[in-house]
Amino acid sequence: MGRVTTRVPRTRYDLARSAVVARPDTVAVEEPLEVRVGGEVVTTTMRTPGDDFDLTLGHLLTEGMVGAAGHVATMMHCTDVGPDGSPTFNVVEAALSPGTTLLRPARERTESMTSACGVCGSASVDAVRTASRFDVGADPVVLPAAVLAALPDALREHQSAFDRTGGVHAAGIATPDGELLVVREDVGRHNAVDKVVGALSRDRELPFAGTVLVVSARASFEIVQKASVAGIPAVVAVGAPTSLAVELAADSGITLLAFTRSPLFSVYARPDRVEAPADPGRTDR
Amino acid sequence: MGRVTTRVPRTRYDLARSAVVARPDTVAVEEPLEVRVGGEVVTTTMRTPGDDFDLTLGHLLTEGMVGAAGHVATMMHCTDVGPDGSPTFNVVEAALSPGTTLLRPARERTESMTSACGVCGSASVDAVRTASRFDVGADPVVLPAAVLAALPDALREHQSAFDRTGGVHAAGIATPDGELLVVREDVGRHNAVDKVVGALSRDRELPFAGTVLVVSARASFEIVQKASVAGIPAVVAVGAPTSLAVELAADSGITLLAFTRSPLFSVYARPDRVEAPADPGRTDR
Repeated sequence: MGRVTTRVPRTRYDLARSAVVARPDTVAVEEPLEVRVGGEVVTTTMRTPGDDFDLTLGHLLTEGMVGAAGHVATMMHCTDVGPDGSPTFNVVEAALSPGTTLLRPARERTESMTSACGVCGSASVDAVRTASRFDVGADPVVLPAAVLAALPDALREHQSAFDRTGGVHAAGIATPDGELLVVREDVGRHNAVDKVVGALSRDRELPFAGTVLVVSARASFEIVQKASVAGIPAVVAVGAPTSLAVELAADSGITLLAFTRSPLFSVYARPDRVEAPADPGRTDR
Repeated sequence: MGRVTTRVPRTRYDLARSAVVARPDTVAVEEPLEVRVGGEVVTTTMRTPGDDFDLTLGHLLTEGMVGAAGHVATMMHCTDVGPDGSPTFNVVEAALSPGTTLLRPARERTESMTSACGVCGSASVDAVRTASRFDVGADPVVLPAAVLAALPDALREHQSAFDRTGGVHAAGIATPDGELLVVREDVGRHNAVDKVVGALSRDRELPFAGTVLVVSARASFEIVQKASVAGIPAVVAVGAPTSLAVELAADSGITLLAFTRSPLFSVYARPDRVEAPADPGRTDR
């Protein structure tokens, strides 16, 4: 339980040196996690073990199934037994607080997700979008350009599992002055986002106004959607954005940065929140 | 319909030069595709439009829902109408051949997947694995190390959408002498794999014995699973492998390469299929 990395056999080839060496390697652990609420399966996701309760809480929040962390009364691992008879920790059972029900029924959301899947469970095209309860577009936060540009490097300093495996994504939630409030890693980028939202939700109510979500990955639709539902007004991605991420960011009023590699970045929605240094070249504000 | 890339507004910052320029950018299109078989929704995936029939066919094959391309009689786009009244092309309706039924019922597989999700639809942890009908471990193919090392660069030459956006994955299926039989791109790595399997299945029956699946992404569980179900005995990944990918490759007898960047690569399962050059440093064969 909770293994983030593991050792596996590996044969390394270097054709330039005609070298072939058998040497174990460290890889990121990917295992299924089944999340149940009141005994009903709401999702199965391929995740990196550890922070399973953050992941569960964050998933329920960012998928719009619960409205606040306080609506989840308890979370526990079910110690199922694997094929070899040893206990597994791949099921989390959550119980809602008395008088609380899922905002979206579990029945519609019975599905499985891989390590790279985040908005599973919608049965039709129209249902892919989950409406946010918050008007993130009205968030008045101002974000200094230098702070935004520096966030990926700050995130990178916390990526211990990436350092060992090269195979995990990271997400963080930061303040406008660049302080990372929480950082988590996972083989799935959406899981990393769920983990940071879940972790921060223990200390702070949604919406996470005035904060920035930073991700080591591309900016896909799912990442922007999760930010929207969590009330986060800005997303900083290291990688490329997709068309639907740009569209959703513009529609919901989220400042979207991508290709963020200091000193460069590109803003694809709501650049008005970005406070640039003195700038003779600026053409649009 | 069929737009692979699109232009979006973008404000580009270069803090080193205090330059801020508004200039449109090209991004990868990400849109939902709903796949129906006989009127029932079997999946909704976030994909890059184009090659939707390859994607549909490949998804049905690699998820073990149909056993051969010939079992799908027809595929057509349903021209639904979007919120603005214009036609969308985000639903594919497939009809099975007379006397053919889904090998796994559609009811269990009603779910949605993001651009990065591949084994959605299993309701329990135990059901995450889809058994292959083929003994890929018995495939006698021998793969020259130099050919394997060169596959990512060969794939890269076909990645026209990546060149324009930096935001899409690619997959290809190659012969043991390095010929790429088919290449496809998609915002989702699992979609790219489904597209190449679907495309090749029109010319060739499963299993794809003696071939190599090459992916621009990490090697996750879902990628190895799709190779296994398609009967492909080798997977070459540019990125890192996950623990479950290594485990499934070892269990099912798939040769798994990761961190493949010529002249280097690492083999995580079944290195016996890799024919190395003369090699004084080899320690394990």
